Amino acid sequence: MQKRYLVTPGPSPVPQEVLLEMGREIIHHRTPEFRGYIARATENLQKIFGAENDTFIFASSGTGAMEAAVSNVLSAGDRAIAIRGGKFGERWGELVEAFGGQVIPLDIEWGTAPDPQEVKRLLDENPDAKVVYATLCETSTATATDVEALGEVVKDTPALLAVDGISGVGAMEMRADDWNVDLLAVGSQKALMLPPGLAFLSVSEKAWKVIEKAERRAYYFDLLAARKKLKDNDTPYTGAVSLVRALAVATDMIVAEGVDNVVARHRTLAGAMRAAVKALGLELLSKSPADAVTAILLPDEVDGAALKDRLEEEYGVTVAGGQAQLKGKILRLAHMGYMAEFDVITAVSALEMALADAGYDVKLGAGVAAAEKALARG
Amino acid sequence: MQKRYLVTPGPSPVPQEVLLEMGREIIHHRTPEFRGYIARATENLQKIFGAENDTFIFASSGTGAMEAAVSNVLSAGDRAIAIRGGKFGERWGELVEAFGGQVIPLDIEWGTAPDPQEVKRLLDENPDAKVVYATLCETSTATATDVEALGEVVKDTPALLAVDGISGVGAMEMRADDWNVDLLAVGSQKALMLPPGLAFLSVSEKAWKVIEKAERRAYYFDLLAARKKLKDNDTPYTGAVSLVRALAVATDMIVAEGVDNVVARHRTLAGAMRAAVKALGLELLSKSPADAVTAILLPDEVDGAALKDRLEEEYGVTVAGGQAQLKGKILRLAHMGYMAEFDVITAVSALEMALADAGYDVKLGAGVAAAEKALARG
Repeated sequence: MQKRYLVTPGPSPVPQEVLLEMGREIIHHRTPEFRGYIARATENLQKIFGAENDTFIFASSGTGAMEAAVSNVLSAGDRAIAIRGGKFGERWGELVEAFGGQVIPLDIEWGTAPDPQEVKRLLDENPDAKVVYATLCETSTATATDVEALGEVVKDTPALLAVDGISGVGAMEMRADDWNVDLLAVGSQKALMLPPGLAFLSVSEKAWKVIEKAERRAYYFDLLAARKKLKDNDTPYTGAVSLVRALAVATDMIVAEGVDNVVARHRTLAGAMRAAVKALGLELLSKSPADAVTAILLPDEVDGAALKDRLEEEYGVTVAGGQAQLKGKILRLAHMGYMAEFDVITAVSALEMALADAGYDVKLGAGVAAAEKALARG
Repeated sequence: MQKRYLVTPGPSPVPQEVLLEMGREIIHHRTPEFRGYIARATENLQKIFGAENDTFIFASSGTGAMEAAVSNVLSAGDRAIAIRGGKFGERWGELVEAFGGQVIPLDIEWGTAPDPQEVKRLLDENPDAKVVYATLCETSTATATDVEALGEVVKDTPALLAVDGISGVGAMEMRADDWNVDLLAVGSQKALMLPPGLAFLSVSEKAWKVIEKAERRAYYFDLLAARKKLKDNDTPYTGAVSLVRALAVATDMIVAEGVDNVVARHRTLAGAMRAAVKALGLELLSKSPADAVTAILLPDEVDGAALKDRLEEEYGVTVAGGQAQLKGKILRLAHMGYMAEFDVITAVSALEMALADAGYDVKLGAGVAAAEKALARG
């Protein structure tokens, strides 16, 4: 027997109540019953996003919602600032180019957060910039952006603020309305405790004014078509029935726990994970660590790919490695969604044992002890 | 207690084995285990599509695969023939326009199939036509197109043949390779016995040559990006893990029954449904009826919307009404996917009772008797 533990920054574990909902017989999507699920899920999502804006549910991965935030907004030739500090910031840039836009790059060191004053400078220099594309939690480096500060800088300009909140929202504070976020993209398989297959996009009034004038190349992700259906809690194309019902159940759980409490739980778990990393003599990759996932810089003598495989094959613990230039150099351990203290303990314990197996000089139990200190009810 | 029966042309009923697979805990998508599910599902889909072509699995509704067959193929200004004989033929036209193409329309009476010679004439008159967009089963009118005959007309021209097989494939014969189908779009929630949320696209060598040269506006549905991942049974963006595993199970069932046997079962069920309709003194809408769904023309004195509601509310039987100009004038009863003889009997029986309730002069049991005659093992 090998029990298995999913400690990756998406997909993440799914509660049993949600899995059971996934296994229910299908209902038709153009019915009052299904529209009731959409209404319930949407109301919950608005609470989680801190946004009373129009909120859309797409049958797609999170990248689909990012595409919607580009293809509906930019006309060919439009310029947009893309903050690129990791793989997902780069994705914003790729999307802008794929839809005929021009990227004004703000390239920052991987593992650092953007300086809002740099964004302000770029906006001053480029008054035609249509959008600032940012990332709440850059999953590839486990780095948090101060979205509130970005909103302060963008709000009085004509530009929109678009945020990839795919792995962050639900784990980290997000107040889209208060923080002047115009487009917020979120995915199902991260902190929202669902399987992959759904994406969400919240759209502000300021964004609608731009979308209404844009020369768009969009159909499946056409926001104007989706808006026509939204008032009836309906979608232009067939909704992913099982996933939407599961979404209603999972977001009910988040709202019942209380969005602020959920964010506080993630903060506690992230703090415990970071304490454990330090106690093991290791360093964090990020200078602005996110509360959804932790990226651990591995010592030069440890082969990251082998360590990741050993964790999976020997201990049943699936974690993420590094992407692009970070391949083999970091491990990413998630604490997002359906995660509690003993998920962190399990991940830290497995890491300690696998590091010892790899010949790294680790004091077994030291990381767990530090995590316990951060987690104990006291 | 009211037991419920889903008789709509998508979503359709899902077998218990598939539902149970949907309820399983999530695994990570970048693992040999998940790639095994993709490999198994893809091999099954190729058998069902009759195509050894590259076959892609998208997390989207079927419309996403249609979009991929347009946005990857047409450059702005390109011209394409769209056969429009119903709501889904019209969708091809809308997609062409959404991505900057120009529609060469072949508008045919709703409920009729396109004449291949008309398509030939249009191709002769428009040698620059890049694609012929057709529909295997036009769900809005329950009408079948002779795709094999279209393929004969298109194959020796530079044009591609793109077929919306969303509701047809799995219920009706499809031999994409033999019939020269270059792009075949299919959805999960029809004859493939799955929940909504996945779309499939098969791409021929002839299509790749066009795609490689096109000035595309695609990212989420970018086929060149998807092709790079295909050889490793991987996807560019996070796959819908639960649905893909369920796909492997559902398509295993289809392959185990035998694709030809599955098609024959649908032909038998469709024949029984049509016999019942005639025995009730009603007419089919379609002059070329499909084997996936039957559209019944209602007598003028019967209010179609009220009849549909009565079937649902009084008898627990969900059927589809008419769309656009057919609203209130037809009922559509599906016999696609996880359907057997008593699903047809149930649908016909409910229809008889609801028609009698509505004051229509129906001989109770007459439709069921005709269906039984067509279904009895003999």
